[in-house]
Amino acid sequence: MGKKKQVMLPANEVDLTVVKYQPEKIEAPHLTGFWFKLFVKLMEAPLIGNLIATHLKQKNGITQMLKNTVIPEVPMFIPQFPLQEPEPGVVCLEEDGKPEERVDLAFKCLPHYDPSSRWSSDSGEPFPFRYWKIRDYGYAYRSKLTTPSKAKHFISAMEVFNNKQPSAPLLISFDPNEVRRQAAASTQRFEEGIPLSILDGIFIAVKDDIDCFPHPSKGGSTWFHEVRQVKIDAVSVSRLRNSGAILVGKANMHEFGMGTTGNNPNYGTPGNPHNPKRYTGGSSSGSAAIVASGFCSAALGTDGGGSVRIPASLCGVVGLKTTFGRTDLKGSLWEAGTVTIIGPLTATVEDAILVYAAILGSSPADRVPLNPSIPCLPDLSSNESSNILGSLTLGKYTKWFNDVSSTDISDRCEDVLNQLFHLYGCKTTEIVIPELHELRTAHTVTFGSESLCLLNPDCEDGKGVRLTNDTRTNLALFRSFAASDYVSAQCLRRRIMFYHMEIFKKVDVIVAPTTGMTAPEIPKSALAVGETNLQVVASLMQFAMTANVLGLPAISVPIGYDKQGLPIGLQLIGRPWCEASILRLATAIEEISAECRKKPVEFYDILKGNYN
Amino acid sequence: MGKKKQVMLPANEVDLTVVKYQPEKIEAPHLTGFWFKLFVKLMEAPLIGNLIATHLKQKNGITQMLKNTVIPEVPMFIPQFPLQEPEPGVVCLEEDGKPEERVDLAFKCLPHYDPSSRWSSDSGEPFPFRYWKIRDYGYAYRSKLTTPSKAKHFISAMEVFNNKQPSAPLLISFDPNEVRRQAAASTQRFEEGIPLSILDGIFIAVKDDIDCFPHPSKGGSTWFHEVRQVKIDAVSVSRLRNSGAILVGKANMHEFGMGTTGNNPNYGTPGNPHNPKRYTGGSSSGSAAIVASGFCSAALGTDGGGSVRIPASLCGVVGLKTTFGRTDLKGSLWEAGTVTIIGPLTATVEDAILVYAAILGSSPADRVPLNPSIPCLPDLSSNESSNILGSLTLGKYTKWFNDVSSTDISDRCEDVLNQLFHLYGCKTTEIVIPELHELRTAHTVTFGSESLCLLNPDCEDGKGVRLTNDTRTNLALFRSFAASDYVSAQCLRRRIMFYHMEIFKKVDVIVAPTTGMTAPEIPKSALAVGETNLQVVASLMQFAMTANVLGLPAISVPIGYDKQGLPIGLQLIGRPWCEASILRLATAIEEISAECRKKPVEFYDILKGNYN
Repeated sequence: MGKKKQVMLPANEVDLTVVKYQPEKIEAPHLTGFWFKLFVKLMEAPLIGNLIATHLKQKNGITQMLKNTVIPEVPMFIPQFPLQEPEPGVVCLEEDGKPEERVDLAFKCLPHYDPSSRWSSDSGEPFPFRYWKIRDYGYAYRSKLTTPSKAKHFISAMEVFNNKQPSAPLLISFDPNEVRRQAAASTQRFEEGIPLSILDGIFIAVKDDIDCFPHPSKGGSTWFHEVRQVKIDAVSVSRLRNSGAILVGKANMHEFGMGTTGNNPNYGTPGNPHNPKRYTGGSSSGSAAIVASGFCSAALGTDGGGSVRIPASLCGVVGLKTTFGRTDLKGSLWEAGTVTIIGPLTATVEDAILVYAAILGSSPADRVPLNPSIPCLPDLSSNESSNILGSLTLGKYTKWFNDVSSTDISDRCEDVLNQLFHLYGCKTTEIVIPELHELRTAHTVTFGSESLCLLNPDCEDGKGVRLTNDTRTNLALFRSFAASDYVSAQCLRRRIMFYHMEIFKKVDVIVAPTTGMTAPEIPKSALAVGETNLQVVASLMQFAMTANVLGLPAISVPIGYDKQGLPIGLQLIGRPWCEASILRLATAIEEISAECRKKPVEFYDILKGNYN
Repeated sequence: MGKKKQVMLPANEVDLTVVKYQPEKIEAPHLTGFWFKLFVKLMEAPLIGNLIATHLKQKNGITQMLKNTVIPEVPMFIPQFPLQEPEPGVVCLEEDGKPEERVDLAFKCLPHYDPSSRWSSDSGEPFPFRYWKIRDYGYAYRSKLTTPSKAKHFISAMEVFNNKQPSAPLLISFDPNEVRRQAAASTQRFEEGIPLSILDGIFIAVKDDIDCFPHPSKGGSTWFHEVRQVKIDAVSVSRLRNSGAILVGKANMHEFGMGTTGNNPNYGTPGNPHNPKRYTGGSSSGSAAIVASGFCSAALGTDGGGSVRIPASLCGVVGLKTTFGRTDLKGSLWEAGTVTIIGPLTATVEDAILVYAAILGSSPADRVPLNPSIPCLPDLSSNESSNILGSLTLGKYTKWFNDVSSTDISDRCEDVLNQLFHLYGCKTTEIVIPELHELRTAHTVTFGSESLCLLNPDCEDGKGVRLTNDTRTNLALFRSFAASDYVSAQCLRRRIMFYHMEIFKKVDVIVAPTTGMTAPEIPKSALAVGETNLQVVASLMQFAMTANVLGLPAISVPIGYDKQGLPIGLQLIGRPWCEASILRLATAIEEISAECRKKPVEFYDILKGNYN
């Protein structure tokens, strides 16, 4: 009692010229091993647990923000967008049409494909150390250079991975016969000359929190399939299947998406293809690693707090977070969520475009956000594209942009922006983004409460003790949020939306690093019982949450490496529904960065069969 | 731990033929006086309070419903409506137009006004013991039978009320000079022949949770004006002012709307005009009593859980709950709420139509529910009206309808339905409404959390101890709801919406008593420290919450009296946005019940000046 009340000014009266950037300081213990197990017990104990949660929330300013502050805005429970101007130079897709027809249209939007620039004349194969693009496979299948029955190499490689010690699987549900069956059917279609689309025969992995029949959906846990049956594909997965994709299995993930390292004591923590002693990032850990290693052209992930973009960035691949409402969440664990979307991880931006075209389209009329818009793709086949690029303005909040663990990250990002200006005339403008701490709080409360709502009935029914220590710690914190905190968080959400919509009146895209650090080390002690390290989590998530809280589209593009050879990602956050603009810009950035990009060697070798 | 999980079927798979009606059994203590004060202390104590709340929630099945049940629906945070068919025989109003023009249009929709049927030829005054309608005032002002300067009688009467012992004021903020000033201005307009609308010179009270400058808005508390300044009228109030209404002051209410009896130890509990030893009902207690007593033709109330309809029913007047999104909440305490609306309390249905026409129109583009619709009024001036009435189908869930404290209520309601059939051919059809307990839980959690969000910063800042015991008890319970409970409640909300939209495919209006009991007695011991009696609260609210949880329009019409002479109200719940249909039906019901309707004698005498 007696805690001083604070009163926020209405967002439209806040003077942005006096906003000061305040780096986030997370006060929380870093624990692994025995101490972590003990901590979880304490957090779950009725009284002491509550005291710890209260202490943590107070130390991090969360209580003050949610309970002691008058927030003048009304709650925004799901992202609501102002009406958007149409983007220039785009091709519109039919949301309700057939996915394979959308893929065909997307295919036509891509720049000219020249096999001679992609294939080494010596070996009749794509250049080594370069990722095969979907169009490379498409060319190879159609030129009969290979067939989808190449699946046998994939199956052998997966088996190698699954037998590694310590265990670090990329796929946690994998059925060689299923893969063979799909590959044979695809091969047959090619033989008959009736492939379904450019995605026919393309290997795609599905994160374990998205249904892909006949695999179980465990969400990376050991038991979720016991309480929730999978009878059909998720909507997004069935769209890929209809386009001919080979769905290879369920990708490893941070349990229930409740962490961003990819640590998973249930099945083993996948190593980063660029350095197996480092985390892949998460929660779509397996999705990122399987694409980064070159085994799959694409994987589906879910992104509720950066879970597509963070591992994409740490593994050096492309990760697209779609606008909230753009992809259908039906058949994922996050149908009831307000921050999570399904999005693709791919080796290249054009692959992201193709997969995005297949999976997009959301019809849940009962939760349509305000002012939905027709999905579009950038027409990259036209000569106009680079002129349009030059018309885009990028917004950069320098103090935020530079708040990273190493200047390797910010310098490399900066470098790309300079090249965008020199090559295309893309201007970068300084912006100010206020209330980033409030944004983090709004995110934690929203994502946390919605996750708890999903897991509560089973946790109470005895499954709680079968969760990882990391999940248990998070849930204990999430349980401490009051219902009124949830409402307060939604009020913050509307404020933050206001600020960003004001920024988007002046800029087309907000640019920032994808993560505050490159791939962190996996502590040995974290393999068996996991790890809680909220500082690392915070650094990984600090640039990602904006797009989740506000439902904005965002993409992470690999742009190079830090001094330790670990990938760096640049993030582009777009206007609501404006996937086309960030995809166009991402294509240019990828081209700028192509020189310095390499596929990890170890994995490439495994793929080529040099693994015994 | 180890609590058995329940799994709900998706709402569209539930077999309604096997649904069993289960009367609500509320397990909670009935306390007043010393024991109540002690109970509040316990509820607010850190550990024991939590235990009591947990116990209460478990006893009433709330924990099971929110924490141990898998609810397959996604959350519906604000009411979202399917597209509605246009109603027959209506006149459409311009939401963005001038309120006085809407009032003029509404005036033209009313049946012919015949002074000779309204005014006694002997006295040149309306019949005694009959309420003056707004058109009676309009006629009197325009025929120069009287002028708005009659305000002086009103002022004297209010002073009598405010000096009563024990204190039981109808208005808790009242400035005679303000009233005189407005009355003089109105009188002047009539003298100049330029009245603003039929509302010019009409006395209207405003509930204390809606801003009416220069009065403070205390929400019935002793301190809220210290933390929140009133600088302008609420949107709805300014619309009345622009139409010429005389805004007489701020009506007494249950503190912060957190109760339905009208008990208010801060200012005194207003007595029911039909029996001063009985409650008025609440929370719009003063609004209902001032209209029922004939002092004001209308009052504004807010309805978040029946707070307009319940006191209207208990005091024998008309109370209209508008569709969520139909009236603008700006300038009320409930801007951020998702269940509360502003609506009129009036002596007659036609007065409700006139006031509704003035105040309607909501422009907060940022929280528009799905599929908004143009506001309409029934054209009662046309001969078609009774044909249209005959085309309406009423839905009645008999077991629910009959679940009242006395058959006086259900019998009288039934009687009206029979007459509607015999006079107009209005058919009543049996319906089944499942999950009424879930509806109550969804309401408690939603309304509670949103209220807490409003009050938290000041409660924590030391104002909490200045709340009434009733509010403190409620807040202690509301504090115990977790953020995930809020999300679960919104999932229930979508289920319940589904069931009702299915019902509205078959019927036009759902009929039920407004309350499960007539005006309850005011225990002597409850005057000083208040009362907690959740059984009474539950009985008063049991039919009301549907319209709040789902945002549906609803109206309470007085239809007669029980054996103790206490008023009975019949409630009509309409399709989303279909205020016109329930207003048309209410007009017919009012006519049917006109015979047995009487104005309370005591108050009438006071008004006539026989008060010394």
